[in-house]
Amino acid sequence: MSFSLEEYQDRLRKTKVSMEQLGIDVLLITNPANMNYLSGYDGWSFYVDQMLIVVADEEEPIWIGRKMDANAASATTWLKPEHIQFYPEDHIHSTERHPMDYIGSVLKRLRQAERRIGIEMSSYYFSALAYVKLQANLPDAKFVDASLLVNWVRIVKSELEIEYIRRAARIAGLGMESAVSAIQEGVRECDAAAAIFKSLVSGTDSYGGDYPSIVPLLPAGKNTSTPHLTWTDRRYSGSEIVIIELAGCHQRYHAPMARTISIGKPADEVINVSNILVEGLNAALESVKPGVMLEEVEHAWRQVISKHGIVKESRLGYSIGIGYPPDWGEHTASIRKEDRTVLRPNMAFHMIPGLWFDEYGIEISETFRVTENGCEVLTDFHRGLIVKDQFDIAM
Amino acid sequence: MSFSLEEYQDRLRKTKVSMEQLGIDVLLITNPANMNYLSGYDGWSFYVDQMLIVVADEEEPIWIGRKMDANAASATTWLKPEHIQFYPEDHIHSTERHPMDYIGSVLKRLRQAERRIGIEMSSYYFSALAYVKLQANLPDAKFVDASLLVNWVRIVKSELEIEYIRRAARIAGLGMESAVSAIQEGVRECDAAAAIFKSLVSGTDSYGGDYPSIVPLLPAGKNTSTPHLTWTDRRYSGSEIVIIELAGCHQRYHAPMARTISIGKPADEVINVSNILVEGLNAALESVKPGVMLEEVEHAWRQVISKHGIVKESRLGYSIGIGYPPDWGEHTASIRKEDRTVLRPNMAFHMIPGLWFDEYGIEISETFRVTENGCEVLTDFHRGLIVKDQFDIAM
Repeated sequence: MSFSLEEYQDRLRKTKVSMEQLGIDVLLITNPANMNYLSGYDGWSFYVDQMLIVVADEEEPIWIGRKMDANAASATTWLKPEHIQFYPEDHIHSTERHPMDYIGSVLKRLRQAERRIGIEMSSYYFSALAYVKLQANLPDAKFVDASLLVNWVRIVKSELEIEYIRRAARIAGLGMESAVSAIQEGVRECDAAAAIFKSLVSGTDSYGGDYPSIVPLLPAGKNTSTPHLTWTDRRYSGSEIVIIELAGCHQRYHAPMARTISIGKPADEVINVSNILVEGLNAALESVKPGVMLEEVEHAWRQVISKHGIVKESRLGYSIGIGYPPDWGEHTASIRKEDRTVLRPNMAFHMIPGLWFDEYGIEISETFRVTENGCEVLTDFHRGLIVKDQFDIAM
Repeated sequence: MSFSLEEYQDRLRKTKVSMEQLGIDVLLITNPANMNYLSGYDGWSFYVDQMLIVVADEEEPIWIGRKMDANAASATTWLKPEHIQFYPEDHIHSTERHPMDYIGSVLKRLRQAERRIGIEMSSYYFSALAYVKLQANLPDAKFVDASLLVNWVRIVKSELEIEYIRRAARIAGLGMESAVSAIQEGVRECDAAAAIFKSLVSGTDSYGGDYPSIVPLLPAGKNTSTPHLTWTDRRYSGSEIVIIELAGCHQRYHAPMARTISIGKPADEVINVSNILVEGLNAALESVKPGVMLEEVEHAWRQVISKHGIVKESRLGYSIGIGYPPDWGEHTASIRKEDRTVLRPNMAFHMIPGLWFDEYGIEISETFRVTENGCEVLTDFHRGLIVKDQFDIAM
């Protein structure tokens, strides 16, 4: 297991405090990051229905999944064998039976079918169909949306969690080194992506890399105007810009980082915008300390870019930590206008000042944690536009 | 674009035929594989709400997503600019606004708000919350579950689709070669995974690899008793078995393959079970031809393993093609009891006879297509237990 039993139990205790505040008796957790956070469960099995059930007045959660994954629950969680249960195989992709039928029967057996039940309405792995089936199975339950209940418990990290993010940040740096070294005229995008993956998954000599929740994003040329394109087998030209957004991952903890590379001499506009972006990024990072609200951090950034006549609608960043595909964000606090979340030590964020225009875009980002009196940037790579031919100098 | 405009329009035509059969006027597609199939859209943006709207009596679908992803839609789809629309950025992770509010307003503007609307209730990327919000926005619509409508249209592949799967299968072979070459005593699991990723993403000299929908799965030792564990940074011992399940991917088309490696001399039981598994796999593959039902293919397998006293509850395989995380299966036809889907030329499947016992498991699988008169196995790798020290001989 990645953490001590005490740490898991402390997380469970905090979760139950939130449940009590919201009047929730039973919490049905389907977000794999939340399942991992509370039980340690880790397996690529979230493509079928699975769940962790936390009952307010029961000591230990119950894991329910597919039979073939129950051994994975035994291998990765701290749960007693009788707290690992599975639904019959004929419930998989069936038009007649649904895993929520089984889960409904478990809740009835536990005499929890008429209580206030928290569900994660916006979890990727709790489908609309699962919701309808669960309702049909538990007509006397009172359902409450508890989508982000555990996510909010996760927002302040323990020392060991920060250590894992720190390791992930070191791995992110290795991935970025591979990217900068691979990307040049004549190289195929897929070969650059392959080099990045190799670094991210191998990790360092001391600790390995895990799979990041999002694959490296590699828009190039005009496509840098949009952030979420992956790669093709096209070859890079001698004159284009390439955005690389990636994350190192260790024990499912992420440290994302983005950089922009210019192959060949960049246009003056690209240099100027990159400099403005870094100026804004620095100002925002300098504003970080306990007690500050996230909207104030965004304001520090916006003041800089407004001065240069640039407007950015999308948020400047978001809380990060444990992640499973398709996202490494925690979906709680965002660095944006009107987010009045107050910073506390050991919160961790990806600050990503991406600017996308019609013909190109720039991204230069950092992962940081809030310290006792400021901000520690965990990612470590040249903070600026990387001009490939001048790389040795620019570094 | 990966296909001609004619091919996309043919797919759309078939989709509309199915819509008509089910009495659906408007189809709201959120499954990224289905969005890709009909429009060409390809980007890692499915972690926010996005949709392709097919209106029965309109020529062209409408793509709706986040503003920063609209350029990705322009770059990857065949849609006219006015058919690419986006919701405001303040709808992202907001407690007050939801993308379905915007989508509801679009449907009202198009005068489609009171029609029979098909939705994908079991899509990973149509959350329970999205469903509730959509219902609230469209109180006069009649919703119909059309979860697998487009998936079923996808089940018979065109020649070009088969060519992409064939390329993916070649890439899967390269990935497996890397696995077999990397996995040995003293090597870390993460370094084996890194070598596999590098091969899968680079692809061949002629065509690149895309990211597979599932990362390489690498359970080892006792953990081979469960199929969906990924990797750690543990080092392989001199005597254990390792399952590798991976897929090559090209243009989002997948060819999965699994093999089992024994580091050092395998136990007699492992050899015996592997031989039985391959005998059953061969029998099942030999039974494949147009007109046969999938349950008959499963029966051919089961006859062999029953003879040896082995029972397998889980299905023997499933239809494959386009995939996005978290799954490469099409969720339609399964090779299992009671599945009476009739085989037709250019259907493609992953046949995965995995056997998992308390202390270990074995997987040896193939991707195949149905031909005019039989079966073509597309993956190409030694079909049997791979004993690492004897690899050169075993091959």
